[in-house]
Amino acid sequence: MQKTLPLIATLATLAAYPAAAQDAAAPAEAAAAVSADVVYIFNTLLFLIGGFLVMWMAAGFAMLEAGLVRSKNVTTQLFKNISLFAIAGIMYWLIGYNLMYPGEWTMPGVIGEIFSPKGIDPVGAGVADDGYSSGSDFFFQLMFCATTASIVSGTLAERVKLWPFLIFTVVLTGVIYPIEASWQWGGGFLSEMGFSDFAGSTLVHAAGGFAALAGAIVLGARHGKYRPDGRMQPMPGSNLALATLGTFILWLGWFGFNGASQLAIGSVNDAADVSRIFVNTNMAASAGAVAAVIVTQLVYGKIDLTMVLNGALAGLVSITAEPLTPTIFASILIGGVGGAIACFVVPMLDKMKIDDVVGAIPVHLVAGIWGTIIVPATNPDTSFVTQAIGIVSIGAFVFVVSFIIWSILKATMGIRVSKEAEITGLDISEMGMEAYPDFVQAK
Amino acid sequence: MQKTLPLIATLATLAAYPAAAQDAAAPAEAAAAVSADVVYIFNTLLFLIGGFLVMWMAAGFAMLEAGLVRSKNVTTQLFKNISLFAIAGIMYWLIGYNLMYPGEWTMPGVIGEIFSPKGIDPVGAGVADDGYSSGSDFFFQLMFCATTASIVSGTLAERVKLWPFLIFTVVLTGVIYPIEASWQWGGGFLSEMGFSDFAGSTLVHAAGGFAALAGAIVLGARHGKYRPDGRMQPMPGSNLALATLGTFILWLGWFGFNGASQLAIGSVNDAADVSRIFVNTNMAASAGAVAAVIVTQLVYGKIDLTMVLNGALAGLVSITAEPLTPTIFASILIGGVGGAIACFVVPMLDKMKIDDVVGAIPVHLVAGIWGTIIVPATNPDTSFVTQAIGIVSIGAFVFVVSFIIWSILKATMGIRVSKEAEITGLDISEMGMEAYPDFVQAK
Amino acid sequence: MQKTLPLIATLATLAAYPAAAQDAAAPAEAAAAVSADVVYIFNTLLFLIGGFLVMWMAAGFAMLEAGLVRSKNVTTQLFKNISLFAIAGIMYWLIGYNLMYPGEWTMPGVIGEIFSPKGIDPVGAGVADDGYSSGSDFFFQLMFCATTASIVSGTLAERVKLWPFLIFTVVLTGVIYPIEASWQWGGGFLSEMGFSDFAGSTLVHAAGGFAALAGAIVLGARHGKYRPDGRMQPMPGSNLALATLGTFILWLGWFGFNGASQLAIGSVNDAADVSRIFVNTNMAASAGAVAAVIVTQLVYGKIDLTMVLNGALAGLVSITAEPLTPTIFASILIGGVGGAIACFVVPMLDKMKIDDVVGAIPVHLVAGIWGTIIVPATNPDTSFVTQAIGIVSIGAFVFVVSFIIWSILKATMGIRVSKEAEITGLDISEMGMEAYPDFVQAK
Repeated sequence: MQKTLPLIATLATLAAYPAAAQDAAAPAEAAAAVSADVVYIFNTLLFLIGGFLVMWMAAGFAMLEAGLVRSKNVTTQLFKNISLFAIAGIMYWLIGYNLMYPGEWTMPGVIGEIFSPKGIDPVGAGVADDGYSSGSDFFFQLMFCATTASIVSGTLAERVKLWPFLIFTVVLTGVIYPIEASWQWGGGFLSEMGFSDFAGSTLVHAAGGFAALAGAIVLGARHGKYRPDGRMQPMPGSNLALATLGTFILWLGWFGFNGASQLAIGSVNDAADVSRIFVNTNMAASAGAVAAVIVTQLVYGKIDLTMVLNGALAGLVSITAEPLTPTIFASILIGGVGGAIACFVVPMLDKMKIDDVVGAIPVHLVAGIWGTIIVPATNPDTSFVTQAIGIVSIGAFVFVVSFIIWSILKATMGIRVSKEAEITGLDISEMGMEAYPDFVQAK
Repeated sequence: MQKTLPLIATLATLAAYPAAAQDAAAPAEAAAAVSADVVYIFNTLLFLIGGFLVMWMAAGFAMLEAGLVRSKNVTTQLFKNISLFAIAGIMYWLIGYNLMYPGEWTMPGVIGEIFSPKGIDPVGAGVADDGYSSGSDFFFQLMFCATTASIVSGTLAERVKLWPFLIFTVVLTGVIYPIEASWQWGGGFLSEMGFSDFAGSTLVHAAGGFAALAGAIVLGARHGKYRPDGRMQPMPGSNLALATLGTFILWLGWFGFNGASQLAIGSVNDAADVSRIFVNTNMAASAGAVAAVIVTQLVYGKIDLTMVLNGALAGLVSITAEPLTPTIFASILIGGVGGAIACFVVPMLDKMKIDDVVGAIPVHLVAGIWGTIIVPATNPDTSFVTQAIGIVSIGAFVFVVSFIIWSILKATMGIRVSKEAEITGLDISEMGMEAYPDFVQAK
Repeated sequence: MQKTLPLIATLATLAAYPAAAQDAAAPAEAAAAVSADVVYIFNTLLFLIGGFLVMWMAAGFAMLEAGLVRSKNVTTQLFKNISLFAIAGIMYWLIGYNLMYPGEWTMPGVIGEIFSPKGIDPVGAGVADDGYSSGSDFFFQLMFCATTASIVSGTLAERVKLWPFLIFTVVLTGVIYPIEASWQWGGGFLSEMGFSDFAGSTLVHAAGGFAALAGAIVLGARHGKYRPDGRMQPMPGSNLALATLGTFILWLGWFGFNGASQLAIGSVNDAADVSRIFVNTNMAASAGAVAAVIVTQLVYGKIDLTMVLNGALAGLVSITAEPLTPTIFASILIGGVGGAIACFVVPMLDKMKIDDVVGAIPVHLVAGIWGTIIVPATNPDTSFVTQAIGIVSIGAFVFVVSFIIWSILKATMGIRVSKEAEITGLDISEMGMEAYPDFVQAK
């Protein structure tokens, strides 16, 4: 086993018993007590329930981001969130799924569907030996693709033009995400190397974060955010109730995100494992929130609600790479460290003048890396080197390709609204529609 | 098979393979691999999960409508939405269920329950041969009744009096909906004719839309909406964040609405079919939203968020009549056309001076008709003639009866608040309670 | 059978047939048709689905309370709701679960987890004979503990200091709730006496209400609430849309709260019973809302939306003690009476100058007692005396211990912000962060 730091050694010890139990394994005859048909129905149900919970996360991102932007940009942010989810559905069907699972089974896009007699299971023709319905699998996988796109929109808020954003979403959901995800979940080289990312701390969250980071760099900060005197101009979110609602929605959806990533609930062991995942996911979120309470109280002297929300989300992202093997205590440590990291990365980004409106980079990119790199502490079948290779491969690919796409969009159609439009707010300048027209705005 | 238009021919071609597969049918022995008890539990679970998702749609309508009315009418709109849901529960139990399923099984209202030993399954006495618990069926069916009522409240917002609205809701949920729904789902004449409306594009959505249309005509437009110079006075919604949240809630709930309308998930084939329905439902919604993005960009030069929300909902309504047989591509076409139709019907209604505050008529009535009439394009067991008969029968019945009820209410107690009350806003004039009392209102 | 009042006699008659059916019992062989593995998976699924629905109730409380406080206290209220949920997770794991289920199985806290090889089911090692996974049980139970804490935060809003509130939450979720809940659900003396509280009208809701009441008394009313002239100063909630959303969320979550408290869905009978519970839960909520509509119309001459919301919630609380045995009609009566009671208790509390900002005491404490005491009317296996003993025992324990804790906190660190801070609002004074900074506030 690899060398470990002291904290990691503790975590490994804590994780020892489930790993040992895993070695002992469950008797094979237990699983046989459930017929193939019943297994198929249970697994399909898991994907459908998990899928609708992850679909609900799209609403969570929409509310979180609508709450964290200023009121003059809310309509635009809402529009981006619902349209990116719609685009993800179409692009993942048209191109993405086939890129992600090459050769496994043909999920033809529009061309294929017209000329080929293959697709998701035809009406009334499920195949028990598949283990689950292809439709439920497609539904569940699609929601992960959409989540990756949701992460990007918050960072670039309040200054990006609508159509370049939509075009980037087309490329991200149709090509970038499916390619990098195929490296692991499509049976690609990372999977063969032994990289481990249970539900996608890196494949989904850090990937979304890298795409956001590339966009933020190409796009630049909001006007007036970083003042000439070196100080930062606070631009507080307009509706913390929506931001909190969004966080609760994401927390709820994450049970589907991580829980259904077990991919099976048709045996006693799988059902017990899905339960472990639910518990660990909840504990990591709790710990992330509590860590942010403590850190902001100690460092700033006042508890910061938006940091607490981001702390909970960072806890969730952190546990996503491995929600199964940790003990509850290990989950608390992993989530708590993730939440604390997010609190410290927010001001660091500001020092680097990278303007991330909602904190998606600390939460999804940085906590995603943390969650992925710490997997070997609780899962002995993984190694820090392989985890690092996975993070670097995916990070480099997503960041570079995203940077190129954003740069091309910038050079051709432009990706940023005019300074006047930005000061007026995108709701008036880009969409001609205010989110809260009846209320008198400050200033 | 019936004659088809070119588009419809394409759709029919696309749909050919699942239909073929359906003909081949699944081997009967596959279903037998699941015991009657397990089938019962799975089916019951489907109804319960589907039911709570459709219940959640009531919150979606509440948020959508609260977001699309002006701030001075928000409390009233919220009240109408929660009270209509409560009334639907009681009326559907008291009268509706027995009207809708005559003779099938006795679900006695208050009188019956006191004097008769029959009702939903007694405690600890489920019957495996029923295929699902009667309580779960009642729960699921009730939610469809409530949805029909939810559709009406948005159209009539900002001017209808509270009590006449509640009385209409009593009649709609206790009598009108159960009668027309019994024609199909209660084994009535439409069902015998071969009319096909899987989850209720017409039975629920167009029916709600017809009731709303009748109310809008009897009630008249809001003061000042249609100006003497022929131009329309925009009256923008007060909170687009809530409207977007409501749309996401409805999108989520629709997986239960359509998915659980398969009525069974206790076999491999049913599980695969429910999955198809989830996928197609999501795709139609995505396409409806994208269609609205494109249409509003091209026609108005600016993307209109409320149209995009309505586009997604119109896509959902469109696929509801047949979410199972279409291929994904056909679902995208059906939903996309539905979304585009909604965009064009909104200004048409305004030209006819029918004042539909939230766009429920374009979304639920018009897209509902579209979805129902297009069923034969993907489901060869249906015909355009029968579909048209179903739409006309239900439309005529619901419209005429609703028109009569609204007219009686108008002649007796009056259905419209005074002009002064309307200008002040219903929250102050009718309820004496503002939704956002702390915030300074524009004008 | 015990003596009954006339209303109760009617209820008992109505409930007669399910009770009779219960006596007849279902044939044992029916249950045997489902293998132990499949039962385990179904039961685990019930806990997981029920658990995530109850988790969602935390968001419901957050929205309800954020909507019912004034805008200057919204950030603080949101923070308290998300942090109490996080704290509940950690404390229930660390101490609570072991206190609540002593000797049944060891769920070690941090110390135990490090030194002991026991905890929730290890990875891949579920035990079919357990009937459900220990992780799913822990997840579900945890959510009840968190709900108890959620109830307290609303009552004490707008004046309590942050840290004392968090410390009380630590004690409530780690010690107070687990101890009183163990008396019934941990197999303690109330359980042995035959006390019956299906999903916790008293164990969760009245307990939370008693803790809130103790806090309200020690804390005192908001400045200016009760004027020297004996009149009450209205302090209306700032966002009724959020309050309504919160109520819908709670209504939805309650299907998990009551439905999954059946603790089993692996047989036809259990599935039918869970369905009964869903129906009855919905009906009690509907009746509670309708009762509040009628009562406020008759008593105040105007319908009061916040009373209708509380009426629905009181209906839900009322049915929670026994959602299984009542007929639908009995559920309507139980919920309707609960909703009416809440309407009358609100002004009574004001007369007693107990300042309950969101109405948690009428809804959770008083309706909780009503629901618990009425159980024998529909469940012949219970008695009014035992029910009363249960209520008094739990009420006395929770109230006294809470009163002592609040008093100690008051004497040491102080539990109330300064008058100036209260007038300014806690968002600025305690957290330095407004919830709606872009909007101009009235006054």
